Amino acid sequence: MSRRFVVGVMGQGEGASEAAIADAHELGRLIAAEGWVVLSGGRDAGVMQAVNQGAKEIAGSLTVGILPGASLESSAELDIAIVTDMGSARNNLNVLSSDVVVACGPGSSGTVSEIALALKAGKTVILLNPDPETDALFEKLGRERTVLVNSAAEAIVAIKRARQ
Amino acid sequence: MSRRFVVGVMGQGEGASEAAIADAHELGRLIAAEGWVVLSGGRDAGVMQAVNQGAKEIAGSLTVGILPGASLESSAELDIAIVTDMGSARNNLNVLSSDVVVACGPGSSGTVSEIALALKAGKTVILLNPDPETDALFEKLGRERTVLVNSAAEAIVAIKRARQ
Amino acid sequence: MSRRFVVGVMGQGEGASEAAIADAHELGRLIAAEGWVVLSGGRDAGVMQAVNQGAKEIAGSLTVGILPGASLESSAELDIAIVTDMGSARNNLNVLSSDVVVACGPGSSGTVSEIALALKAGKTVILLNPDPETDALFEKLGRERTVLVNSAAEAIVAIKRARQ
Amino acid sequence: MSRRFVVGVMGQGEGASEAAIADAHELGRLIAAEGWVVLSGGRDAGVMQAVNQGAKEIAGSLTVGILPGASLESSAELDIAIVTDMGSARNNLNVLSSDVVVACGPGSSGTVSEIALALKAGKTVILLNPDPETDALFEKLGRERTVLVNSAAEAIVAIKRARQ
Repeated sequence: MSRRFVVGVMGQGEGASEAAIADAHELGRLIAAEGWVVLSGGRDAGVMQAVNQGAKEIAGSLTVGILPGASLESSAELDIAIVTDMGSARNNLNVLSSDVVVACGPGSSGTVSEIALALKAGKTVILLNPDPETDALFEKLGRERTVLVNSAAEAIVAIKRARQ
Repeated sequence: MSRRFVVGVMGQGEGASEAAIADAHELGRLIAAEGWVVLSGGRDAGVMQAVNQGAKEIAGSLTVGILPGASLESSAELDIAIVTDMGSARNNLNVLSSDVVVACGPGSSGTVSEIALALKAGKTVILLNPDPETDALFEKLGRERTVLVNSAAEAIVAIKRARQ
Repeated sequence: MSRRFVVGVMGQGEGASEAAIADAHELGRLIAAEGWVVLSGGRDAGVMQAVNQGAKEIAGSLTVGILPGASLESSAELDIAIVTDMGSARNNLNVLSSDVVVACGPGSSGTVSEIALALKAGKTVILLNPDPETDALFEKLGRERTVLVNSAAEAIVAIKRARQ
Repeated sequence: MSRRFVVGVMGQGEGASEAAIADAHELGRLIAAEGWVVLSGGRDAGVMQAVNQGAKEIAGSLTVGILPGASLESSAELDIAIVTDMGSARNNLNVLSSDVVVACGPGSSGTVSEIALALKAGKTVILLNPDPETDALFEKLGRERTVLVNSAAEAIVAIKRARQ
């Protein structure tokens, strides 16, 4: 089997907080340093952009973006662009294509839909510094499959545990 | 223009509470009595089944279901089955195809994804007897476009207001 | 079971020939007169528009369009608009949601993809006045499930036979 | 820009001819030797499997598969599996995500739908040893954007020309 281990990183695009962007950048570096693939929604904004920028600081990293639009034109940090032309319906593909999902920062509506779809699909979801309302709802909906962490380094530990 | 006004009703399938099912049944009757189309996820379970059963008690009602599977075999109460064969990615079609969305009862992961996708798409979402965690998150994410109601009759009033 | 029988009518949008448009208009009338639902790609152009216009000449007709775009704004002749925001990937939903598919006139690339997807999904496809190249390819690919006809009236006969 | 150049290879799964499988295997080797990414429908059958097996004979090759099903379990030769759970609707993603599309061997319905969707999306489609009916239809539909070739080596030349 040559399939590589894929970590999906979800989070707000435009309007993401500085803290979420910093977490995403560090997370991208650490995921890539483990030799895992970074998968995201692929747009050039917020958490998606930051996680890919972090990953591309590591030689040999591989970044895959699943784009909502119709064009192969994509983020400067994407190695592989999957072009769906299916808007937010592509959110389900983001989570199905990930071995583990990390939601980075407080949830926008798009991110919340991805956490919900990931739980529906039976994935482990790691919540990295979420807002309390997102944490409260998903702790309730997916108790055994959500993990709350406070740093990118803790997220890596949680991913390794989920992988076993 | 002959396009009919469509109310999307989202809610838990298997495991829906008796209260949510009773609300959905009454909501289906009242939507149909207004001459509006009932749109749902189309499966023969929980809120989806109840809203269609309620609607079919009204002569001339029209029920549309957007199915996750690949088969035209569908609920006994569906007039029109849209067959997507795209699993939970069809949740985005449910909300895009609705003029207004009602989330009926506490949210399962599927329903939560639909509320989030509806807000992302700029739709008004009426929360009918949600659990407090779902209410808290979506009041925060979509303050002006979420409406909290306690009965099917109140939902109809809120739909009429949203329609104006 | 209340599900209504659905005939999917596929064909060229912009650039459709006058003959194809005339066939589509007549086909829409005849399908609606049988009490069947007309399903199409829903856009306000060519065969899609003509089949819906034909159907709306019959009292009590029901027209469903599965739209590629993100907006509920749709053809003046659609009763129900299914909004997919998934571009040409929605072609597969068009055929899966139809009991029988009629391809009206020479095939554009979109129509050819729908004929192919319909055969893949095990549907009967009626080719109404196709160009010889489309006929030759699909006679070969789906011999038992393609039917060649020369008029809208013959298409209705073929639909009835396929329905049995 | 780090995005890698992607060649989509489409063709029959089960039932592919020995000649098509041999062409696909050689094509996979040659694409990978150029440093390009091989993208396919990802299933473990026919042309899809052969092109990935060919590519994996080259060190450093990268194979991406866009799967119709819901599971990350995939072909032994895939580096990256994109899981869509959307059946044949994923065919549109295959072509949108490719810089150039090669259809390898005679077309099954699935392959024919992909050629049609690729032309609709404005892609160049290289037909490698097609059957005469497929060639005739698509020469007509997409004259300037279809290229007929007789060997994997010729396909590489045509890809290079399309890329300029």
